Amino acid sequence: MNAISPFSPSARVVAALREQVPLVQCLTNQVVMNFTANVLYAVGAAPVMVDNPEEAADFAAGAASAILINTGTPSAGKMHAMHLATTAAAKAGKPWVLDPVAAGALPWRTDQAQHMMSANPATILRGNASEIIGFAGGLGGRGVDATETTSAALDAATHLARTYHCVVAVSGPTDVITDGDQTVRLENGHPLLTKVTGIGCALGAVMAAYSAVTTPLDAAITATSHMNIAAEDAAAGTTGPGSFAVALLDALANLTPDEIVSRTNLS
Amino acid sequence: MNAISPFSPSARVVAALREQVPLVQCLTNQVVMNFTANVLYAVGAAPVMVDNPEEAADFAAGAASAILINTGTPSAGKMHAMHLATTAAAKAGKPWVLDPVAAGALPWRTDQAQHMMSANPATILRGNASEIIGFAGGLGGRGVDATETTSAALDAATHLARTYHCVVAVSGPTDVITDGDQTVRLENGHPLLTKVTGIGCALGAVMAAYSAVTTPLDAAITATSHMNIAAEDAAAGTTGPGSFAVALLDALANLTPDEIVSRTNLS
Amino acid sequence: MNAISPFSPSARVVAALREQVPLVQCLTNQVVMNFTANVLYAVGAAPVMVDNPEEAADFAAGAASAILINTGTPSAGKMHAMHLATTAAAKAGKPWVLDPVAAGALPWRTDQAQHMMSANPATILRGNASEIIGFAGGLGGRGVDATETTSAALDAATHLARTYHCVVAVSGPTDVITDGDQTVRLENGHPLLTKVTGIGCALGAVMAAYSAVTTPLDAAITATSHMNIAAEDAAAGTTGPGSFAVALLDALANLTPDEIVSRTNLS
Repeated sequence: MNAISPFSPSARVVAALREQVPLVQCLTNQVVMNFTANVLYAVGAAPVMVDNPEEAADFAAGAASAILINTGTPSAGKMHAMHLATTAAAKAGKPWVLDPVAAGALPWRTDQAQHMMSANPATILRGNASEIIGFAGGLGGRGVDATETTSAALDAATHLARTYHCVVAVSGPTDVITDGDQTVRLENGHPLLTKVTGIGCALGAVMAAYSAVTTPLDAAITATSHMNIAAEDAAAGTTGPGSFAVALLDALANLTPDEIVSRTNLS
Repeated sequence: MNAISPFSPSARVVAALREQVPLVQCLTNQVVMNFTANVLYAVGAAPVMVDNPEEAADFAAGAASAILINTGTPSAGKMHAMHLATTAAAKAGKPWVLDPVAAGALPWRTDQAQHMMSANPATILRGNASEIIGFAGGLGGRGVDATETTSAALDAATHLARTYHCVVAVSGPTDVITDGDQTVRLENGHPLLTKVTGIGCALGAVMAAYSAVTTPLDAAITATSHMNIAAEDAAAGTTGPGSFAVALLDALANLTPDEIVSRTNLS
Repeated sequence: MNAISPFSPSARVVAALREQVPLVQCLTNQVVMNFTANVLYAVGAAPVMVDNPEEAADFAAGAASAILINTGTPSAGKMHAMHLATTAAAKAGKPWVLDPVAAGALPWRTDQAQHMMSANPATILRGNASEIIGFAGGLGGRGVDATETTSAALDAATHLARTYHCVVAVSGPTDVITDGDQTVRLENGHPLLTKVTGIGCALGAVMAAYSAVTTPLDAAITATSHMNIAAEDAAAGTTGPGSFAVALLDALANLTPDEIVSRTNLS
């Protein structure tokens, strides 16, 4: 379905992001820091990676427009900084996104992420199907790759959205986004998205950026459409995962607000 | 020599990697994490960077198909995680690859790597000539770049292979791979391989991936051929190190098993 | 003005860098490590990221040709290593570059960087206008992006250069470089330079590389011209920030010494 629905991304929101250039404070994993920063610049936001206990809370309370917490490659120090930053973000009323990498597969980080969420619920919780099921207490996957389908994760996503009064985004071939009441399915994207490391992680950062300029549900939808439609353009001219990743950054920057809206494929 | 020998990579092994998608747990340096992950996806494997003391051993004993230990940018915490992961890998019978970055040039990490190897010998030890000589106790180079030829490292490589009952791979313009008894020389590759950071590091990860589906000697040979022949294709259409690195990822993904076998140049 | 002045970069210096391949020890932020290493290879230098307290000082005193200190993503351990490395560099007479990322915006790292500088002044201090003003004690920007113009930073730059007897380079649309006495303005570059993460950080590394083969003032000028003219070439053939970053690495490697000299635009 291509018609514009109440759940379509709006061109106004994409334009607002590019005009306001929200500053996204990323406490994220070491594998994807560079790519995440470049994705944020490409969509029209700006990255700051302040992720140490000495500075993370002050920055979250101060200059940050939104905060991303991604639990990949956690050290004890960075995990501590994440708790401090999310507490400061909640107190300051800043939106924040939780990306519980490998939730369910690794108990230590799953516990830590659940504690963060219980103390100060995130604005948006984003993961693949295995991570959302794992975060909800089910058996997780083998790591960062989804071994469950997004449909299988819908019950967990709805449960989490209702429990924490947040939006839950389950990324996959079909993206499912729910606030516990309303559920949206998005069908854009390309298989090469799973052949480049950190695209899901970067999507969480883009959701954080959009959450600084619109509602959580709209932010999750618009970010997902922006990334997936860029992936369609990127895949068109590329011959493998290397050139795809490069073209994806170009496409994220070059898509117009109207293209993102008109090409969004809701199902 | 292009004829297929007992030491040629086999098409069956390349196909097996792509079918089984082994999960390679990388405890590697911060400089190359992103590139290593993308290389693993490109060859057909999957990366997980679980490198903290809280989780590394459990993951090595559990979901990991193989483990890569790369001693670049070591922190005390990550070094501790490496000891835990290799002990767990040995106990669980998982293959693991040791890449002793800057061995010989930096005493602290050289000692740590030697202790790991003495406690639980790696399946494959991979380095450039300076690192292999340095690891064996000789004077190392000035850092990560080889200042010795692979031929000069052959004695050290043979000695290490016999001492630890492992395969030793010395990367360079000619790649020398030995199990202490049989020695193979591979002549593929391109000079641009030395102008992009982390290709040797990523090669260690690819060896770990192949070691999950075949013998150590075959894994080291097949990984080396896969990388070097991809480099030949990548160099053909590029104008500098930036476009070469992108094209290398494309070529790693696009090479067929038969191409890797038929184009391998043994000497 | 295109004419060659006493402050033009010299072709001899660019050639010397490529001939001597200085080894730049980078203690830099996690976001840009990979890109920085690839930029160093592209210009003709070589990177080593020895940034832990166990090894940083020995390497700085030993094999390193020059040292880069970049205060992005600081951990307590890495900050300690920075103090050790700069002390060792000073004692050994090695040139070093300080890039005080987010100085002024974040008090902890600003204090640390100021203490380093007071104990052992850097050869070159490089930042954007906000960072130079913030480092000098003024109010800093919102993070890594400049919110002040380079002209506004000239007083701070001159003051810092005279206080620490170093060269101060203020990066921006116009680059201002001063030793406190003589001031040079460079007009090359392209707006896409601000849409890729880590280019300023990598520029600091290139300044460190050039400082191993020429005077501090000449090193800052030549590095800036090399990067900015490469950006002009890279922008010519690209369609967005992804392809620009790739083409930048190619252009850095492909520019001839004479092109860098003749195309430098002093104002």
